[in-house]
Amino acid sequence: MANETDNKWIGKRTIRPDGEDKVTGRANFGADFAQPHMLWGKILRSLHPHARIKSINLERAAAAEGVRAVMCGDDLVHFPVDIPAPAGPQDLRYVSRNVMARDKALYAGHAVAAVAATSARAAEAALDLIDVEYEVLPWVIDVEEAMQPDAPVLHEFMYTQGVDPQPSNPSNISSRSGLTLGDVDAGFEEADIAIERHFKTKPVHQGYIEPHACLVDVSPSGQATIWSSSQGQFMVRNVTAKMTGAKLSDIRAIPAEIGGGFGGKTIIYLEPLAYTLSRKAGAPVKMVMTREEVFRATGPTAGSSNTVKIGARRDGRITAARATFRFQAGAFPSSPIRGASNCAFSAYAIDNVKVTGYDIVANRPKCNAYRAPGSPIAAFGVESVIDELAAELGIDPIEFRLMNAAREGTRAAYGPTFRRIGCEETLRAAQSHPHYSAQKGRLTGRGVACGGWMNAGGESSAQINVNEDGTVAITTGHPDIGGSRASMVNIVAEILGIHYRNISAQVGDTNTIGYSASTGGSRVTFAAGAAVWQAAETMVEQLRERAAMLWDIDVDAVDWKDGHAHPAGSNAGEFEPLSLAELASRAALTGGPIAVQTSVNAQGPGPAFATHICDVEVDEETGRVDITRYTAVQDAGRAIHPDYVEGQMQGGVAQGIGWALNEEYIYDEDGHLENPGFLDYRIPVASDLPMIDTIVVEVPNDAHPHGVRGAGEVPIVPPMAAVANAIHDATGLRLGELPMSPPRVLAALATKGENADA
Amino acid sequence: MANETDNKWIGKRTIRPDGEDKVTGRANFGADFAQPHMLWGKILRSLHPHARIKSINLERAAAAEGVRAVMCGDDLVHFPVDIPAPAGPQDLRYVSRNVMARDKALYAGHAVAAVAATSARAAEAALDLIDVEYEVLPWVIDVEEAMQPDAPVLHEFMYTQGVDPQPSNPSNISSRSGLTLGDVDAGFEEADIAIERHFKTKPVHQGYIEPHACLVDVSPSGQATIWSSSQGQFMVRNVTAKMTGAKLSDIRAIPAEIGGGFGGKTIIYLEPLAYTLSRKAGAPVKMVMTREEVFRATGPTAGSSNTVKIGARRDGRITAARATFRFQAGAFPSSPIRGASNCAFSAYAIDNVKVTGYDIVANRPKCNAYRAPGSPIAAFGVESVIDELAAELGIDPIEFRLMNAAREGTRAAYGPTFRRIGCEETLRAAQSHPHYSAQKGRLTGRGVACGGWMNAGGESSAQINVNEDGTVAITTGHPDIGGSRASMVNIVAEILGIHYRNISAQVGDTNTIGYSASTGGSRVTFAAGAAVWQAAETMVEQLRERAAMLWDIDVDAVDWKDGHAHPAGSNAGEFEPLSLAELASRAALTGGPIAVQTSVNAQGPGPAFATHICDVEVDEETGRVDITRYTAVQDAGRAIHPDYVEGQMQGGVAQGIGWALNEEYIYDEDGHLENPGFLDYRIPVASDLPMIDTIVVEVPNDAHPHGVRGAGEVPIVPPMAAVANAIHDATGLRLGELPMSPPRVLAALATKGENADA
Repeated sequence: MANETDNKWIGKRTIRPDGEDKVTGRANFGADFAQPHMLWGKILRSLHPHARIKSINLERAAAAEGVRAVMCGDDLVHFPVDIPAPAGPQDLRYVSRNVMARDKALYAGHAVAAVAATSARAAEAALDLIDVEYEVLPWVIDVEEAMQPDAPVLHEFMYTQGVDPQPSNPSNISSRSGLTLGDVDAGFEEADIAIERHFKTKPVHQGYIEPHACLVDVSPSGQATIWSSSQGQFMVRNVTAKMTGAKLSDIRAIPAEIGGGFGGKTIIYLEPLAYTLSRKAGAPVKMVMTREEVFRATGPTAGSSNTVKIGARRDGRITAARATFRFQAGAFPSSPIRGASNCAFSAYAIDNVKVTGYDIVANRPKCNAYRAPGSPIAAFGVESVIDELAAELGIDPIEFRLMNAAREGTRAAYGPTFRRIGCEETLRAAQSHPHYSAQKGRLTGRGVACGGWMNAGGESSAQINVNEDGTVAITTGHPDIGGSRASMVNIVAEILGIHYRNISAQVGDTNTIGYSASTGGSRVTFAAGAAVWQAAETMVEQLRERAAMLWDIDVDAVDWKDGHAHPAGSNAGEFEPLSLAELASRAALTGGPIAVQTSVNAQGPGPAFATHICDVEVDEETGRVDITRYTAVQDAGRAIHPDYVEGQMQGGVAQGIGWALNEEYIYDEDGHLENPGFLDYRIPVASDLPMIDTIVVEVPNDAHPHGVRGAGEVPIVPPMAAVANAIHDATGLRLGELPMSPPRVLAALATKGENADA
Repeated sequence: MANETDNKWIGKRTIRPDGEDKVTGRANFGADFAQPHMLWGKILRSLHPHARIKSINLERAAAAEGVRAVMCGDDLVHFPVDIPAPAGPQDLRYVSRNVMARDKALYAGHAVAAVAATSARAAEAALDLIDVEYEVLPWVIDVEEAMQPDAPVLHEFMYTQGVDPQPSNPSNISSRSGLTLGDVDAGFEEADIAIERHFKTKPVHQGYIEPHACLVDVSPSGQATIWSSSQGQFMVRNVTAKMTGAKLSDIRAIPAEIGGGFGGKTIIYLEPLAYTLSRKAGAPVKMVMTREEVFRATGPTAGSSNTVKIGARRDGRITAARATFRFQAGAFPSSPIRGASNCAFSAYAIDNVKVTGYDIVANRPKCNAYRAPGSPIAAFGVESVIDELAAELGIDPIEFRLMNAAREGTRAAYGPTFRRIGCEETLRAAQSHPHYSAQKGRLTGRGVACGGWMNAGGESSAQINVNEDGTVAITTGHPDIGGSRASMVNIVAEILGIHYRNISAQVGDTNTIGYSASTGGSRVTFAAGAAVWQAAETMVEQLRERAAMLWDIDVDAVDWKDGHAHPAGSNAGEFEPLSLAELASRAALTGGPIAVQTSVNAQGPGPAFATHICDVEVDEETGRVDITRYTAVQDAGRAIHPDYVEGQMQGGVAQGIGWALNEEYIYDEDGHLENPGFLDYRIPVASDLPMIDTIVVEVPNDAHPHGVRGAGEVPIVPPMAAVANAIHDATGLRLGELPMSPPRVLAALATKGENADA
């Protein structure tokens, strides 16, 4: 930490303004809000993985003790399925049917009806009085089974998009998409060696600690307030408005602090229901999911079944790469197939690439974004094959990657020609890191893997107000997930030249800050940072003008440095420098309050890359894999606040290790999830992990005033492949299926043993 | 109300956005906030009107069941009394000692110590365990007694300011002030007739329905949030910060809706205490006053003892006016002597004026602002003497006022030469109103009176954001007391040319909107209106630029009208007009979110004047005065929203009638208030009042883009004199003392009867 007189703050480890309240539980999360006369809402969920809803009778529930409102899907706005709309994770035709079923329940856990009552217990009891008549239908969970022509079809109106001619029968394959660069067949012709492998990954949940929660109050006047935990209060407002028919000016969405999102809170589940119940009841309605509901009904990322083939010359040059991704969307089209396709080979300069992607529905919860959506799944296959190729070619795996690494001027298969990127730099930093050359233990294996993410920019707004005492308030429009308040404070402190502790940072609600897209895609430090930077620079202009006014000199004769206006040069005249506090106290004389608002559509987010090194020990008796050492190297462009870049890296690795080793959804034979809780769905805990070492490489993004690249997504991309490659190094086993859990490792070891015995 | 396709909104009676929630009790007022683990704070108050505090022992209270924090005055920042500071209602030396006593308790009800506990009951119980050792001192309540040289002195350090040489003994007279115009002695020489009368008025409470309430949460990190009901969240933050030593960036003050303020919530009582208790306890602390506490410890306006003398020629021309105001400040200097002095004769063009004012402390609650502070007290005397003069001269009272009315070019005794004002216009409108010429009943008297107020401008900020669907959000920094949201909506709807129902209006907190001075002085529609106007005009510029960008034409070739961008003239090219919704949906293409923030220091508020006509019936058996008809005529410059101008007028008259007829503080012989509740302190209820007829005159204020003059203060100025003049018309009695309650009227009637009998 810098000393108190230092006014340079970018890159400093300043104290996070929201930190203490969050770790002590004082901060207000989604479930912490209350209003007078508040009701509790509860949701009836389908027990059937697939069933036609023949009728819903809410009368008995409505008459029950304490019940003030009841609802079902018919109470939400109808989005016809036969009107084309851009499919994607936020397609309202699907999101709205996911929030509450219409004609069919499509997974066990699908919301079917809801009640609001004077207590949670009364609401819960009333759910038993809702009479739903179902026609139970055959169902399908597995992605490959769902693709079969004779599989039970979830959506009778769904015909595979992106196939010419369009099939004449409805299908669970919602779309086929693809990327092509060069001539992949010719590329494989050029190759001396080509390896093709198949990979399977399981859906895994984002595992945020805070369940979804909201409080919604709709006044009889039509004006509504929503308090909820999400990755974007503007998204909350927009989706709730569309599903309920409200206009945006009638809803104020106030962001709670967020206890983890990781992409999973870029969409909503409860707010339109609480809104509808509140509107009917004329009272505020609170809804809080149980952990079980979170697992049964909110978005994991896709499971997948993928094929990756890469060919190279003997000299180590990759000549062609092909991948086919079959992604499981859950009950509605929503898989992160685009992220997987874009990122699959983007760390490498390959002339001939072909990627084909399938988005496939099945009777399980609808997918939602999860950190670098799609890229980790792609990297698991690609980096495993790269590792195997390097081994076959007898080239050091980092050296092999360096020989093929994407760099400035590389054309990526998804379109762009890269500006300056840091892929090579992370590889070189990993190569020279002591970890890479450290002696390995007897049972230890070491693996490396790369990964990247495009990152995002887009629309953000910022406001900076100077308080009457010269301290400063910043407002942006993004829930603070990963320390964005601290980063915004650093930027403003540096530009204004004041101590960072004299700046407060807040997250505005939808009505008091300009539109800001959701926190996600690793966009906030980049885009909101750009808005804040612009606001602070504009404020410096204003401050110079105000000093010029007080001194009665030309604004060009005023400099701003170290938090003071100074006369610039000897011709400007003799004046004592004016501090921000002095200018604030005289603001009324120079035009009134000092306040600036800016909005940007930030362009050029700058892809980021990482190289990870992982050591494992494999217990051949139990199949347990221990991570004994882990080093993550990542290009952050410029680390505005290094703690939170490193924190993102450590968190991403931890989640990647969980995905690699343990996390999976286990279904029984009736299509019910068997492990909807953190006891049985095993995310890593502290004792499962070593200290994760982080190396931040800084290759500035030239499209950002401070060189920022998004840092939040990339660290989850390499771990699964790094762990798999380390397991191979330890055991000689190439595991192509996640999770690499003890039973699966044991089974593979047994097969290997049998082969050895044979 | 305009029809739905009309886009002209200024002057329309649009539906108030906050109306329904306020009348149904759904809105969140100061006492409606809650936080997890919240404590309740309670205050120990002095039972002695005047006592030296020898010691306070908090130990027993601190150890009591459920108690989490205790405090006394020593826990607040010390503001030395011997350091000069600008005296006035918000002088922190006094405000801080009023919030909690230091060396002395200065009135019965003065806060002495406080506790926070897990329940209100536990906190209340712990108050009994606080051991305070007092040295009881002689006390004084009455203003004239307090002025006597031998009166008990409240502040040993107080020497009368404004007297040359300064007295060598401390005194309860905190200051003498004055205004002089021309030569008042020469003016009286010129007069053919001069009348001098003495007047007394009682302190009256603002009578807001909502008692003071707050919730304060100080995090161990030092960051604090204050939810409270006030007339200014920035004032709340500023005063709390100063009394607790916090910096402004560490406090976020969130304004509650306000259940009446009338000036009485321009200062705080609870927040620094709740802040201190919360900081000590590490938990949120809520404090809510009882009605009794409101009466015993919060600010009424001054009581007074005044002399007014006016001289005129036979032809009706006033030649001189003199007034001496002796205002009772309560325990600390704080009386509205300046408002009284400025406004006393400002409705008239008089060449020779002299006003002397005294601010006098006594052992009763410290005064606070009350609607047009000082002016109603002055007007009671001045307008009574004017009425008597007119009668003596045989001139119709409105005609007499018209002969002397201030107008454009009149030099006011307090300094300014009036720009265009509407004093005459209100007199003429009253003169021609059917009420003035209506037949009077047998027992009916009719009185008229004028009054004025300077109004206020100053610093205000505004933000306008366009939502993604083209609806709009406005934020300003002022608690909405009198319908300001509705007025801001009208202004923005008119300028943007969109339907008012597509605009939401919110009150920002201290951290999400630029600095805005408190709601008061009748400044909001003027100053915030100017900020909102400027923001909306800036937004129209932005919208034209964005349309020009989409059409690829010059911005000068784009007009904005009826909520659409249009190509301007035939050379601009052929384009379909673009609506705000269309521009909003394409904002990302034209620079990002559409949002504007402005701050102003609004100058030239424009004085406003009113003429009231009042009919009374006096019951000679009981002394009861019934108001049988009332017409208020007032210049509002331009009524942005006529409902809320009329509402202000009706409310001001109602309060003025209460002041005239019933309201007073009654003390027992121990210096204790005997009527601290609405049963015994009698504010008018609906059945006490006729429908108050309102006539809004519009003489535009040329310093405001829409011609606005403040409307909230003026209507409370004339009623006391109008009622007194009507009582004279009915009974022949000139009552010079308020309230003109049944006992006092009966007593006067008796005296008159005796005189008649004699």
